Amino acid sequence: MQAVGPFKLIGDVNADDLMVPMATYETPLWPSVARGARVAKHAGGIRVTLIDERMTRSILLQAPHAGIAAKHLSSIESRHAEMQAIVSESSRFAKLIDTHYQVVGNLIYLRLEFHTGDASGHNMATNAADKIIPWILAEYTDLRYVSISANYCTDKKVSAVNGILGRGKYVVCECTISEKYCKRFLKTTPQALVDLHIKKDLIGSIVAGGLRTANAHVANMLLGFYLATGQDAANIVEGSQAINHAEVTPDGDLYFSTTLPNLIVGSVGNGKGLDFVRQNLELLGCADPTAEPGVNSRRLACIAAATAFCGELSLLAAQTNPGELMQAHIKLERTHKN
Amino acid sequence: MQAVGPFKLIGDVNADDLMVPMATYETPLWPSVARGARVAKHAGGIRVTLIDERMTRSILLQAPHAGIAAKHLSSIESRHAEMQAIVSESSRFAKLIDTHYQVVGNLIYLRLEFHTGDASGHNMATNAADKIIPWILAEYTDLRYVSISANYCTDKKVSAVNGILGRGKYVVCECTISEKYCKRFLKTTPQALVDLHIKKDLIGSIVAGGLRTANAHVANMLLGFYLATGQDAANIVEGSQAINHAEVTPDGDLYFSTTLPNLIVGSVGNGKGLDFVRQNLELLGCADPTAEPGVNSRRLACIAAATAFCGELSLLAAQTNPGELMQAHIKLERTHKN
Amino acid sequence: MQAVGPFKLIGDVNADDLMVPMATYETPLWPSVARGARVAKHAGGIRVTLIDERMTRSILLQAPHAGIAAKHLSSIESRHAEMQAIVSESSRFAKLIDTHYQVVGNLIYLRLEFHTGDASGHNMATNAADKIIPWILAEYTDLRYVSISANYCTDKKVSAVNGILGRGKYVVCECTISEKYCKRFLKTTPQALVDLHIKKDLIGSIVAGGLRTANAHVANMLLGFYLATGQDAANIVEGSQAINHAEVTPDGDLYFSTTLPNLIVGSVGNGKGLDFVRQNLELLGCADPTAEPGVNSRRLACIAAATAFCGELSLLAAQTNPGELMQAHIKLERTHKN
Amino acid sequence: MQAVGPFKLIGDVNADDLMVPMATYETPLWPSVARGARVAKHAGGIRVTLIDERMTRSILLQAPHAGIAAKHLSSIESRHAEMQAIVSESSRFAKLIDTHYQVVGNLIYLRLEFHTGDASGHNMATNAADKIIPWILAEYTDLRYVSISANYCTDKKVSAVNGILGRGKYVVCECTISEKYCKRFLKTTPQALVDLHIKKDLIGSIVAGGLRTANAHVANMLLGFYLATGQDAANIVEGSQAINHAEVTPDGDLYFSTTLPNLIVGSVGNGKGLDFVRQNLELLGCADPTAEPGVNSRRLACIAAATAFCGELSLLAAQTNPGELMQAHIKLERTHKN
Repeated sequence: MQAVGPFKLIGDVNADDLMVPMATYETPLWPSVARGARVAKHAGGIRVTLIDERMTRSILLQAPHAGIAAKHLSSIESRHAEMQAIVSESSRFAKLIDTHYQVVGNLIYLRLEFHTGDASGHNMATNAADKIIPWILAEYTDLRYVSISANYCTDKKVSAVNGILGRGKYVVCECTISEKYCKRFLKTTPQALVDLHIKKDLIGSIVAGGLRTANAHVANMLLGFYLATGQDAANIVEGSQAINHAEVTPDGDLYFSTTLPNLIVGSVGNGKGLDFVRQNLELLGCADPTAEPGVNSRRLACIAAATAFCGELSLLAAQTNPGELMQAHIKLERTHKN
Repeated sequence: MQAVGPFKLIGDVNADDLMVPMATYETPLWPSVARGARVAKHAGGIRVTLIDERMTRSILLQAPHAGIAAKHLSSIESRHAEMQAIVSESSRFAKLIDTHYQVVGNLIYLRLEFHTGDASGHNMATNAADKIIPWILAEYTDLRYVSISANYCTDKKVSAVNGILGRGKYVVCECTISEKYCKRFLKTTPQALVDLHIKKDLIGSIVAGGLRTANAHVANMLLGFYLATGQDAANIVEGSQAINHAEVTPDGDLYFSTTLPNLIVGSVGNGKGLDFVRQNLELLGCADPTAEPGVNSRRLACIAAATAFCGELSLLAAQTNPGELMQAHIKLERTHKN
Repeated sequence: MQAVGPFKLIGDVNADDLMVPMATYETPLWPSVARGARVAKHAGGIRVTLIDERMTRSILLQAPHAGIAAKHLSSIESRHAEMQAIVSESSRFAKLIDTHYQVVGNLIYLRLEFHTGDASGHNMATNAADKIIPWILAEYTDLRYVSISANYCTDKKVSAVNGILGRGKYVVCECTISEKYCKRFLKTTPQALVDLHIKKDLIGSIVAGGLRTANAHVANMLLGFYLATGQDAANIVEGSQAINHAEVTPDGDLYFSTTLPNLIVGSVGNGKGLDFVRQNLELLGCADPTAEPGVNSRRLACIAAATAFCGELSLLAAQTNPGELMQAHIKLERTHKN
Repeated sequence: MQAVGPFKLIGDVNADDLMVPMATYETPLWPSVARGARVAKHAGGIRVTLIDERMTRSILLQAPHAGIAAKHLSSIESRHAEMQAIVSESSRFAKLIDTHYQVVGNLIYLRLEFHTGDASGHNMATNAADKIIPWILAEYTDLRYVSISANYCTDKKVSAVNGILGRGKYVVCECTISEKYCKRFLKTTPQALVDLHIKKDLIGSIVAGGLRTANAHVANMLLGFYLATGQDAANIVEGSQAINHAEVTPDGDLYFSTTLPNLIVGSVGNGKGLDFVRQNLELLGCADPTAEPGVNSRRLACIAAATAFCGELSLLAAQTNPGELMQAHIKLERTHKN
């Protein structure tokens, strides 16, 4: 584990000279992320924008037929306040914000969507669902239980639904970097990086049969950040479905962005009690006991996303130059072995 | 970290009373996997079959037009022996076994596929690609370099290509469990578990817009196993694209299987030098210095897959019973907090 | 072109002895669909349920950065009534019912969702979008136009978004068929058909890297129906992303369903003026001039879906028997050539 | 139906002043495709490259367990010549060129891949599979039949497998167009068109949860072409999974390409005996009775692809200009109604 940086963030989080801890076996990751952070700091900082947040659990019920399913779903959706009352009893932080459903034959996939304060919210959502199910079964007696989790949530599995309907924090990171800084820090040009991004992140992911994914190695940065901050790192499966977008601006600068539509983090919950985790959360300014619920975890999400952004920017720059990637690996892994 | 079991494996790996280490913050995972292992052991053991193994790196080149791309690709594919000679110089373990490509306009996505001995092989494949690129550029002078990695590999990103063309080990785990054992150990019936599997793993994943994925939480087991055995845990992104298949046999028993078509593990390489990792690899019988190259890592892959199998079997069983999942979480997390 | 049946529908459409016209070169399709219709009629009819309906067009705008995008989107969503007023001017049938968006870097993908009366609504939605864009650009002067269609609609292309957020009619068809009728009409058993459905429609589609698709050949039936009723047949691309669900009931009967979450049809618009189209719409009872707007097209959607259901049921039954499929093709194509 | 053009093709097909028939209700399609053809002709013609061709059928078998499945598959793959002998008896044109498989639990998805002469080859492949199955069941007596079609083929359904392993013809179309011609014919600039392509075709398709698709409306052109040339138009489902790639060249020109990796066409077979179809095939030069088997259908595939290319180029150009799309629709549909 090592803290890398310094990061400068602007937008929904304002921070300067932030050092970000990452735990990894892949040692070249540290200098790579640090390089991205450095050039972005010189360019004015990484703009972070939080678009949405929610945690979900889908339940699975069976109706006598789809006609009854449709009728009951319509009724259930109209009784939001009653369901919220049930959810409130399960946790003072959980708030039901929306529902979505799919009907397949006589099966109902009902996706319950919550705000969960500073927790990533898996257990809070499961617990709330566990209370809502008996209520539904009592109110609509011709429905029967199939499962408390229907994979339409979906947890730790690749999907399109988490990006389209939302799960976790939806964070966009952006920075515009001059050609001069591109050359000095990243050893590349705006045009070369954009060109590679299009052919690798976009077209390469499409031919690979990717799904809502267009990045180089977001999973690496999320894993390092998650392990250092006590997150359930299995959430990198969905979190890594991130989309880069880059272009050369009319002024010849590099606009680079990484969008993480379903980034799951929490500043409280399982794993957060460990000493190193607590220290890391404090280092990041995400353990403020006086903050409103949700503020710490939103800040944490923005920092996680910015870390991914830096790693993407730096690796893409490296791959524009033949041989650079392998040389960096050889040099850095030798250094760390010594 | 805790070692769970005991596991009994048959088929391509034969082992009994194997204890498997898993590192996780999600403490209910341990007893859940252990329950799956226990019932499978009573049922005769988990049959593991290794279908395929390879590590890949795709390179990205640009031709003047697709006609030239097609002509050169045809030529390159015919010169397998020359490329293998180059690969051999990069590593004594790396062996080029196959190539596949896609042409998009004038772009070439050339996927190089290797055997890499006991290593997971990321660096070995990158290194080999780094040697092959200059050779191609010298032999086919109208091609130009775009990237050493084209996302058609694909590394740590969701895709269809890794399942269809292979990346990592392709392992199938199976077991047939009598109705009696289902009831005794899993508190469910074969019919109830199969019914849930179909509606959740299969249909639920399809409506979620999943891609080559049909499981409940394979990512959790892989993460725990990877952290305990010094793997690069970011590979759970692709590894978790696993497919369960279950049915009630003519005799009324439960046939249950978990297929992991792209499971990336290595018994040597980065992270394997740490003391706890070494001990865990020895515990698993995957650090035999006298074994042929590849034997240790294939065994490791089979054990990783069996761990995923047990977690799947146990969680699906739990979800057939309303309320059981949440009660288990509450009880076990309380226990571990005390 | 041939009219096949007779169909019996119950639920959201009630009809008996309905003959359905289909135009196809694949002549075995007619008797196959007719067989499905016949067995379903004997079993009490096909229950059709319409879950949702909407037509969409997504527009693409660019903001200075994501922070401004988020702020403006929040404002735009709050001004639903103003947008509806603009939409009303573009058409008396178009009604804006919802919006959804994605932000990628500084790009805005804004999905406008409409009710469009009896028209499939492509042009109506495009026209409405064409009016909304200038209003947005005038009200939010730092946004700029990129495209009137952003592929987040999405029209005639495979996607997950059309199933998850809806596009066209969402129709479920169901029928429960006794074992006796399965054997008599379909030459198979409930268990054999369900078994095949699971291994082919569900698992087979998953290993093929399918996306929100689990059927055998829905595209065939939709094409035949679309050509006969003057639809834009290119919409079979998205319409064919249909999901079958089948199970053996506790009584040993076959429950079979086909769910079409994004089935695009219209009873008015381009192509509907041709004589044979008009006759076919009248034959189907979908040209009632006294009906409320939307009634004719909803009926048409339910019949289209029922046609797909019958073809699925019949083909799956045929494939349970080795050799039957090929023999049917040989026999029927010879007949039609004579 | 109308013939549009003139087309000029170079590369694997050389033709000039070719008129291409298209049948559609969407009348603006004709002038749109014609505009694309015209500008490409002025720019030197559309370069067409045929990368691959094959037709597939996957069969579904069940083994006692995956270990036996793996063993038998290894044996089956080694007996290519024996299988080819069987295939030869089923048709003098069918040639088994490759096999691929997936094992899921104890299930075998075996994809048989054929050359099929000038036919699209669905029936030829099914017929060959129908002969291979009894041979496999006789040689490997512990395998049992599940289905003659396993959805791993996959026919008329969205998938990743058809693009990655191939099905139908794999055709690339390319053209480099000067800025002057872009402005004169397409009313746009290379930069504007490339910019739109990236944000709509690439990123828009990714956020929509698309799968191996990056185009605007390829389905429209394929449908029109298929209906005019007697193809089974349901194959537009897979054929429309096409990928555009465009960039501004160092000289400031527009490089534009459309890649269709799984385009299914035939110049013989069902539907080809109709008078208008025969005339159209002759018009296109795809009914040459003296040509080697496969030549006519490969030419047909290249022309179909070029038609899609022209429609893509023209529509993208139109969408770069606010309002142009809707105005064109209004103007052209009014014209055709008069």
